[in-house]
Amino acid sequence: MCRFTLYLGPAVRLGKLLIEPKHSLIHQSAHANERKEPLNGDGFGVGWYAPRLSREPAVFHSVSPAWNNRNLTYLARVIATPCMLAHVRAASPGSVVDLSNCHPFAWGRHLLMHNGVIGGFSQVRRRLLQDVSDEAFSIIRGSTDTEHMFAIFVDQLMRHAREDERSEDMAFALAQRLSATLQRVLAVTQAVGVKEPNCLNVAVSNGTHAVVSRFTDDPHSDGDSLYYLRGNLYETTAREFGERASEDRDPAVIVSSERLTNASAWHAVPRNHMVAITRGQVPRLLPLAPDATLLAAAPQAMHMAS
Amino acid sequence: MCRFTLYLGPAVRLGKLLIEPKHSLIHQSAHANERKEPLNGDGFGVGWYAPRLSREPAVFHSVSPAWNNRNLTYLARVIATPCMLAHVRAASPGSVVDLSNCHPFAWGRHLLMHNGVIGGFSQVRRRLLQDVSDEAFSIIRGSTDTEHMFAIFVDQLMRHAREDERSEDMAFALAQRLSATLQRVLAVTQAVGVKEPNCLNVAVSNGTHAVVSRFTDDPHSDGDSLYYLRGNLYETTAREFGERASEDRDPAVIVSSERLTNASAWHAVPRNHMVAITRGQVPRLLPLAPDATLLAAAPQAMHMAS
Amino acid sequence: MCRFTLYLGPAVRLGKLLIEPKHSLIHQSAHANERKEPLNGDGFGVGWYAPRLSREPAVFHSVSPAWNNRNLTYLARVIATPCMLAHVRAASPGSVVDLSNCHPFAWGRHLLMHNGVIGGFSQVRRRLLQDVSDEAFSIIRGSTDTEHMFAIFVDQLMRHAREDERSEDMAFALAQRLSATLQRVLAVTQAVGVKEPNCLNVAVSNGTHAVVSRFTDDPHSDGDSLYYLRGNLYETTAREFGERASEDRDPAVIVSSERLTNASAWHAVPRNHMVAITRGQVPRLLPLAPDATLLAAAPQAMHMAS
Amino acid sequence: MCRFTLYLGPAVRLGKLLIEPKHSLIHQSAHANERKEPLNGDGFGVGWYAPRLSREPAVFHSVSPAWNNRNLTYLARVIATPCMLAHVRAASPGSVVDLSNCHPFAWGRHLLMHNGVIGGFSQVRRRLLQDVSDEAFSIIRGSTDTEHMFAIFVDQLMRHAREDERSEDMAFALAQRLSATLQRVLAVTQAVGVKEPNCLNVAVSNGTHAVVSRFTDDPHSDGDSLYYLRGNLYETTAREFGERASEDRDPAVIVSSERLTNASAWHAVPRNHMVAITRGQVPRLLPLAPDATLLAAAPQAMHMAS
Repeated sequence: MCRFTLYLGPAVRLGKLLIEPKHSLIHQSAHANERKEPLNGDGFGVGWYAPRLSREPAVFHSVSPAWNNRNLTYLARVIATPCMLAHVRAASPGSVVDLSNCHPFAWGRHLLMHNGVIGGFSQVRRRLLQDVSDEAFSIIRGSTDTEHMFAIFVDQLMRHAREDERSEDMAFALAQRLSATLQRVLAVTQAVGVKEPNCLNVAVSNGTHAVVSRFTDDPHSDGDSLYYLRGNLYETTAREFGERASEDRDPAVIVSSERLTNASAWHAVPRNHMVAITRGQVPRLLPLAPDATLLAAAPQAMHMAS
Repeated sequence: MCRFTLYLGPAVRLGKLLIEPKHSLIHQSAHANERKEPLNGDGFGVGWYAPRLSREPAVFHSVSPAWNNRNLTYLARVIATPCMLAHVRAASPGSVVDLSNCHPFAWGRHLLMHNGVIGGFSQVRRRLLQDVSDEAFSIIRGSTDTEHMFAIFVDQLMRHAREDERSEDMAFALAQRLSATLQRVLAVTQAVGVKEPNCLNVAVSNGTHAVVSRFTDDPHSDGDSLYYLRGNLYETTAREFGERASEDRDPAVIVSSERLTNASAWHAVPRNHMVAITRGQVPRLLPLAPDATLLAAAPQAMHMAS
Repeated sequence: MCRFTLYLGPAVRLGKLLIEPKHSLIHQSAHANERKEPLNGDGFGVGWYAPRLSREPAVFHSVSPAWNNRNLTYLARVIATPCMLAHVRAASPGSVVDLSNCHPFAWGRHLLMHNGVIGGFSQVRRRLLQDVSDEAFSIIRGSTDTEHMFAIFVDQLMRHAREDERSEDMAFALAQRLSATLQRVLAVTQAVGVKEPNCLNVAVSNGTHAVVSRFTDDPHSDGDSLYYLRGNLYETTAREFGERASEDRDPAVIVSSERLTNASAWHAVPRNHMVAITRGQVPRLLPLAPDATLLAAAPQAMHMAS
Repeated sequence: MCRFTLYLGPAVRLGKLLIEPKHSLIHQSAHANERKEPLNGDGFGVGWYAPRLSREPAVFHSVSPAWNNRNLTYLARVIATPCMLAHVRAASPGSVVDLSNCHPFAWGRHLLMHNGVIGGFSQVRRRLLQDVSDEAFSIIRGSTDTEHMFAIFVDQLMRHAREDERSEDMAFALAQRLSATLQRVLAVTQAVGVKEPNCLNVAVSNGTHAVVSRFTDDPHSDGDSLYYLRGNLYETTAREFGERASEDRDPAVIVSSERLTNASAWHAVPRNHMVAITRGQVPRLLPLAPDATLLAAAPQAMHMAS
């Protein structure tokens, strides 16, 4: 079922997020607290942006667990980034532990990762891809439900590319693309008559903006846990990187399956909401309808507690 | 482009085939002779049958090269089998080196491996799967052209399952399924107008029968090399395994991308032919038309040199 | 700290031991019950004997966890063996997850695996090897405390090779070699003044005989858990393998860090004892002195409950 | 036998060195030109310095080949560094392909990598370590000849730490430590009477200074190939990283087993010489005696062609 952490803010060393916190994602890879099975040991992935060097993110994937990976320990020490998406995987029974099945998935400037499950995936796998373009179909490399959802998301990005380029609220545009993706997943599982609920905590980013959903259609559950924190929890390394002093004062936003620390600043993302984040701005909470449509237009979205 | 070796005969230790011959498949993983690029180091796989223990074959896959894999060295010493399919991979540029992309591919009792390429695969990927059943679609785990062809082959097996159960010439039935698979690949690439030729040296087996094709639609080439040998090249371990003495006297058949030894008993499989093998019988050469249909009905097939 | 299972008896499919039991070793890799940390996910290894094919055992090692390894699933289905040693690893903090650090360790006909720790290993590492022969020194490939202990064990085997060849009680001879190994470890840690206790649950075998110790010099602990079971818990596949009918009736012996099932036939190995096993005979419990010397001569050893 | 590349100069993207040159190290991993066997596919490693973030280098190791590693492709795009040591491995027969056997080896601020072989390593393995301190002994994690030589080098660094701290010519101090290391290797192999020659092309660095040797005691050979280039072959990314403009104008130095390009600026390092490099200065060629002692005191060393 997996755990994930997303960061957007002043440049920070990966280790500050992934290793040093008491309940960091690496700790959660072996000892998650808020799912029945504490173990997320079926590989991991870290995606991050290096805006001075590349518009497109880098991804480091491994099929071995995160808790004892020497390469990750080194990278965590020498890589600093203003935007990171990290994921520890708990493969569904029967699912292959393979590089191509590691999150986050990358396409151009975008990253996506997922904690949860598409209900009855084996029944709907083919149908999920039915309406996507050939190009979006062709990005599939593995066999996870998430990557199939990612193809739908990429299809949305392609269809709305021109419109999004001119968008003045890119975080909201991303939220629309993710909302449309979730809607499509729900529509297909309902059409096929799948009984198992969907659990769709999904994080997407382009390096400057990010959106994370907490969503389920299970009437008996609030879905998987999800928290956010705004503030300068960690001393950043922004200035070391030559970022402008103003950038260094931006509060960071972290969205994580579980709270990384005991700080009181962590808030739960409510059931069936999205968090939309633009670097340097106050993030917004966007409510979702039961069919995953966005209920609020961009300007009316509630600002989050900070 | 890859290299492969298939064996059908009295039980033989894997090492006798994979390691001991001067130009064994493991040697070919680093030093292939009959393709431009001698290197086949993007993972490997061995599938074999253990008929006393399981109707279904076992598969050992690795993303690291075959030439220096300690697990393979051990397995080669203690596993003996009457039927083996082994493959060393040279991934196409851009293709992922992933467990799910290793050959041979397994479904129920069947194994399939491939040396060659589906022309313009990225253009025809989706269309290759268009007519297969949902079940066949769902076996795809990776992103190789071969696995997509495998889905077509599995679709053929499913469609003809009843008929094949009653078949008195199972090797020929397998040849029909493989022929239909190749036909489908050719039909799709032609329909889409792909320029690059197909190169379809494909081996399939159910543990008792096997068929291997040497096929190309490239008018300027004979396709990839393929050889067969019939005879007791190696002292077998059949008796150690309690096989009947009569089984021990069956000549073995080996079909291999390159000759494993300098023995004169190796013969080239002619362009656009299949070799159909039934354990204990003289194998047959079945000619293929330019569209990959079988030109000979079963009884008329030429017997091979031995 | 690790978990392990040793089997000696009629040929049995690996899956019967490693996968099918409710609390199999693979289950223990993620959910061990009798150590504080339930996780043993830092690689694994299986060693087994194929006496019809080789005097020396085969070993399959992996740096990824046992619970989701497709190769292991296949091997477990098609390999049957009269003697297996399997181990799931929990690496000490800072220790490298590397193939060379996977148990069991192999030398000639012998295998050794370990659950526990040599106290203050980093302080005594060099000294442990001080008295072993150059040959024994040269078998070290990795950096575990266990492999250093293994070099001492191999040194013992070499020194007593002639004597042991003529031994009429090979299980007892193995117990003497293992006892001398433990004594050496204790002598070195004491000489250096290490404070941390040793925990030395060690299993050794030559395929026909096996010895497993439960030993600690910690006055406040009984050491790691260890259980044995004698009986035909599983339907064996001996006859499928052409073993003699008489062999098929031998009761099997399993020694395991944790009980694989709820069967009442499991007994705890007492603190500071060895279990000495010869195939087809009633196993013996051999008490150890605080310095790990064998307290009982061979004939006087208590027979175990069965 | 391996191939390696060292870079010291203005910050440059890893891909500029490892991927883009026509005959980059990644190309050499499959197609080396200047050794009999073109293949260096037994894992690889890249060590680099990120001086703004850490005094100690980072290392990325992999047991799979360099030519098809997706993680490396990503890292090469987003990591820029003023000092890199990269290595593709061709394991000696029988040697284990293991993370702990990948170069470069790291200790504190230092990295070391090696192309070549210690003659008769299995005979001298233990003796090589005889005189090193316990601390240096304890850094060994694997089983390569190189790591044993590395322990000697670390021992030298420890013994001369105070002296080196005050050194005004740190590159020369490093050359002295490496010279002493090679001398020790030669002394041991001679004392034991090894027949096989040593081939000791070794690169060491602390991030600001570097030394690379080309050395053999084989009278019939010039040892493995080694080239250097001084100049701004690649457009650097120094300014993107906020390095001072002056740093950006420093010519870079590359030392590589094979020439990365056809540029005429490449010069062969003569047999039994060291190249000593300090960032921003003209590198020096230091001749070595047949016993690997430095023949020239620091000031007299010839300056290299540039």
